[in-house]
Parts: sequence; structure tokens; C-alpha cells
Amino acid sequence: MSLKEGILNKDKRAAARLISMMENNDPEAIKIISALYSHTGKAKVVGITGPPGAGKSTLTDKLAKKLRQEGKTVGIIAVDPTSPFTGGSILGDRVRMTDLYTDPGVFIRSMGTRGHLGGLSKATLGAVKVLDIYGCDYIFIETVGVGQSEVDIVKAADTVLLVMVPGLGDDIQAIKAGIMEIGDVFAVNKADRDGADRTQVEIEMMLDFNHSEWRPPISKVVALYNKGIDELYDNMNKHWYYLENSGKLMEKRIRNIQLEIIDLVQRELMDRLVGNEEKKAMILKMAEKVAHREMDPYTMSNDLVNKVILKNS
Amino acid sequence: MSLKEGILNKDKRAAARLISMMENNDPEAIKIISALYSHTGKAKVVGITGPPGAGKSTLTDKLAKKLRQEGKTVGIIAVDPTSPFTGGSILGDRVRMTDLYTDPGVFIRSMGTRGHLGGLSKATLGAVKVLDIYGCDYIFIETVGVGQSEVDIVKAADTVLLVMVPGLGDDIQAIKAGIMEIGDVFAVNKADRDGADRTQVEIEMMLDFNHSEWRPPISKVVALYNKGIDELYDNMNKHWYYLENSGKLMEKRIRNIQLEIIDLVQRELMDRLVGNEEKKAMILKMAEKVAHREMDPYTMSNDLVNKVILKNS
Repeated sequence: MSLKEGILNKDKRAAARLISMMENNDPEAIKIISALYSHTGKAKVVGITGPPGAGKSTLTDKLAKKLRQEGKTVGIIAVDPTSPFTGGSILGDRVRMTDLYTDPGVFIRSMGTRGHLGGLSKATLGAVKVLDIYGCDYIFIETVGVGQSEVDIVKAADTVLLVMVPGLGDDIQAIKAGIMEIGDVFAVNKADRDGADRTQVEIEMMLDFNHSEWRPPISKVVALYNKGIDELYDNMNKHWYYLENSGKLMEKRIRNIQLEIIDLVQRELMDRLVGNEEKKAMILKMAEKVAHREMDPYTMSNDLVNKVILKNS
Repeated sequence: MSLKEGILNKDKRAAARLISMMENNDPEAIKIISALYSHTGKAKVVGITGPPGAGKSTLTDKLAKKLRQEGKTVGIIAVDPTSPFTGGSILGDRVRMTDLYTDPGVFIRSMGTRGHLGGLSKATLGAVKVLDIYGCDYIFIETVGVGQSEVDIVKAADTVLLVMVPGLGDDIQAIKAGIMEIGDVFAVNKADRDGADRTQVEIEMMLDFNHSEWRPPISKVVALYNKGIDELYDNMNKHWYYLENSGKLMEKRIRNIQLEIIDLVQRELMDRLVGNEEKKAMILKMAEKVAHREMDPYTMSNDLVNKVILKNS
């Protein structure tokens, strides 16, 4: 059975294989996904993010279990805060509940933030397409919401679930504020801790400045004890129905596809710039000139665009 | 007096003006910096980073004061963890000591992570060049080390000072691990807290895996009470002399310039792709086709590269 047939026949291993190929930027994987692209667009894609320590993994697991009880299949793509230098996965699957792993209706995949030859978002969005073709009803993309690249990835979802937590420090508040605006649905996790009400009030106050049609609902949850998950699940679905009925779903997806296309073009052009050893050696020589102040980096990069990239076609 | 003359004559306002122009991606600023580029390369550039809550701002301020006592001039570029969506500065200058502001030997500039037409790293590295021409002996780039873009910026320094702190949670540990490898010098701040020794041991253990010539030294400091700053300052300078005497300084700078040139080329090409309304409208149309599954994003982006960017030259 070919990979193409495999994935259409809900073969988990075919899906896993295809995702690995996307991570390796294998052109064959892109061919297969392109050919099956008309099978995408059915899954509800939910981005789950929030500051470090908010308990996103636990919450994701509980939501996945809730979905299973409702008879839905779910794919989980966990984007790990791994080293940008070694690519080693730090959290990895360690925190994942093993009973989800053995459930045939659940597909779990951890993706490090490094080691993707074509870039993290290309690999992640490729994985979303694979799981969509594979037939997942819901696809969760879980990521620590601290860096721009993670925020970009999570924005590619239909619904963004922001997981907050009471009592984080000042710097964390700043990071929280940086991602507050992408939340469609909020959860205050660890709500049995002091300060949960205050956190909720703070979020409400921030949302008061938001004058869009959709007012993001806030649920207090204790993911560890499975408290509040039903309400959160309802809120998630309410957002989905809002998107569908208002026509915003297509609008949001078109915006996301624009960003994806731009990212793909950017990667292709970078490949033309530094895609082989000869090109890398040339840039090294140029950098040496700049380091010795024989030329400045602005003039140098301008020359590169005009003389190398545009000619090299 | 022209801007060019102003900055060569150590006019603070000229430097500030030029940095603002870089933030606005003003071609005039790039012309001026290009013309004065031979005046760069003299400043010692120190990147200061670490997890949220580590007390980087306080430490930066104390180090700056130490430098002033030693008769050195210093520029501080604080890259704020602002909203990627509104561009509003959250920490801003609020946490900055006001007495440094009035010191003519200190130049302080906060840069938000958004609102840079040419990109954050282009603006930040431009500001470093401006302060280098202006004549700062040391330039500090301070940033929260949580996102790839912040890590990229701080890597552009000659010396990276990693500020750690005892007793952060598990997720934070993961982030710490993500930036551990770029540290040339370590500070365990808030070392009067429980767990400081343990944090130091953990860093030492991690460094045991590092077999490069330079073993990053670790200082325990309490920045708030100015404890341990002298030792940290010595360590910073030791790293500088190591770089200079081993020839690694030029090596590191050449590597950083390569990254800068690639970033500049990338920005220029993106400008060609989405630099005007007509181009944006075309991409929107393409995205609509993809959203309706008439075409896939991979074929679409491939077409864009071949038919638009390379032809549009």
C-alpha cells in the first residue's frame, strides 16, 4: 500500500511516516500532500498556548479525553520548547498520558523547535494537513506561547485557546499580554490556587478593550483534577459555531493561508541563497570583507539580492 | 550640523534620531551608517539575556554603573517583550534607574519587539552600529531569552551574559536549557534566595558537556544590593580578552555578519513579495483559491517564486 493509500485508509503509521518526511523537508511528502490537498479543511484546528508553567499539556490531554468521550478523533501536535541549538527534545513525550497513546482515535506527535530542514512552521502546518487528510475531527497544536515563531504557529489555528494561570511574576505578565490578543477562548488553569478570581478579572478587563463581535469566554479549570473541562469544551465549540455561522471561518483561513504562502516563498528563496556549500562559501567571503570593514553589510546584501538571487534563477 | 557630523561629535540627540530612523527603516539612515561603517567594530558588545523574572534589567543597570566607575561609556539597548500585535511597550523604561538617564556617558534605548518596519533585528543591529560609531566603549543588548528572535539578537553580541535565578518551575527550566548553550558568562542572580547553590551546580553540570576552549565562569550575584557585580564584570572582561587573544573575536564577528547579511537579504526579498498593495491583493487572491481547495499552497508558492519574484526584478 502506498503512503497515499495508507493515509486515506487511516493507517497511523502512514501518517507518522508522512509527518517525518515533512520534518525532513522531503519533496515526496509535499507531492503527496499536494495531491491530497482537496481532502483537507475538514478538521477543527485548535491552537493551545500560554505562558510557561500554565499546565498546557495536562489541559490538552484532558480536552482530548473529553473529545474521545464525545466520539471524536483527535490529533495532538505538541511543539516543544527545545533547544534552538541542539534540537534535543526536553519535555518530549514524558509529560504525556500514556493511555492516550494506545487509543486508536488519538494521534500524538511531538515536534522539536529545531531540526526541521524546511522550518518549524512548514513542518507543523504540514503535519496539520496530514492529520486532516488522515481524518482527525479535531487537531490540537500545543505550544509555549513565548516566542514569535510559536505565536505564528498557533495563530494558524481556527480557534486559539489561551491557558492562563494565577500568580505569575511581572515578566510573565508581560509575556501574557503579548499573546492575550490572539485568544478566542480562555482558560484559567490551576483555578484552585489563590488569585484565580483576580486573574479572571484581569483578563476580563483586558477583553473590555476588544470590540470585535466575538467576546472570548473564560473558564476556570483545574486540569489536573479534570474540573471545568466540560465548560471549556463547550466554549471551544461555541467559538467554532460562531466562526462557521458568521463567515469568519473562511476569512480566518484565507488570512492564515496568506501567511503560510509567504513563509513558503521565503524558505524557497533562502534555499537559493544558502542552499549549497558553494553559496555558503561565497557568503562567508562577503562577511569577512564586512568584518574587516572593507564594505558595509547593507551594500553587501543589496548586491547579493541583485547579482545573485535574481540572476540565479 | 548634519546627522553624520552630529554622531561623530558625540551628539546624543543625533544618535537617538538615527536609531529612530532605523526603526522606521528609513533608507537615509542606512546611507549614513554605511558611510560611517568604518567607524564601527570598536565597542565591546554584550548580550544580556535569561528567563523572565531573572532580574536582567537590574543587573544591566548595576553593570552599567560599574562601567561608569571604571570610566567607560556604555550604551544600553533594551529589547522589550512587548505585544507582537499592538507594539505597545509593556516594561518600557519604567524599570530603568533614572540616575543612569541623566549620565552623559550612558545612552539608553528601549526597543519594542514590534513596530520596526524593517524588522527587529535590523533595527537592533542598526542601533548597535549607531552606538558604536557614537563611541560607546560597551554596548549592552538586553532581552528576555525566550523566543528565537530574541536569542538571534543576543547571539549577535561578542559576549553573551546569561542571567539565571534559583527556583524557577519546570517549563522555565526547559527555556533555560534552550539558551544555556549561548552563554559565555553566567550570573546566578538573586543568589540570597534558597537554591542558589543548586542552580550553580546545575549550570556547572551542564557546562561539563561543553568541551570548547572557553569554560564559562559563573558568578553568584544579588543585583538589587549590588553584590557580586565586580566579579561578574571581571568575568565579562576575561571573556573579552580570551576572544581577542585567541582570534575567536574575528571568527565570531564574521559568523554574526553572515547571519546579518542573510537576514537583510530575506527582508529585501519579502519587500519584493508583499511590498505594495497590488502585490498584497494578488497574494490574497491566491490564498482564496487555496482556501477553496482549488490549488494547494505548495504549488502556489512555487509559482510565486518563479513567476513573480524572479521576474519582478
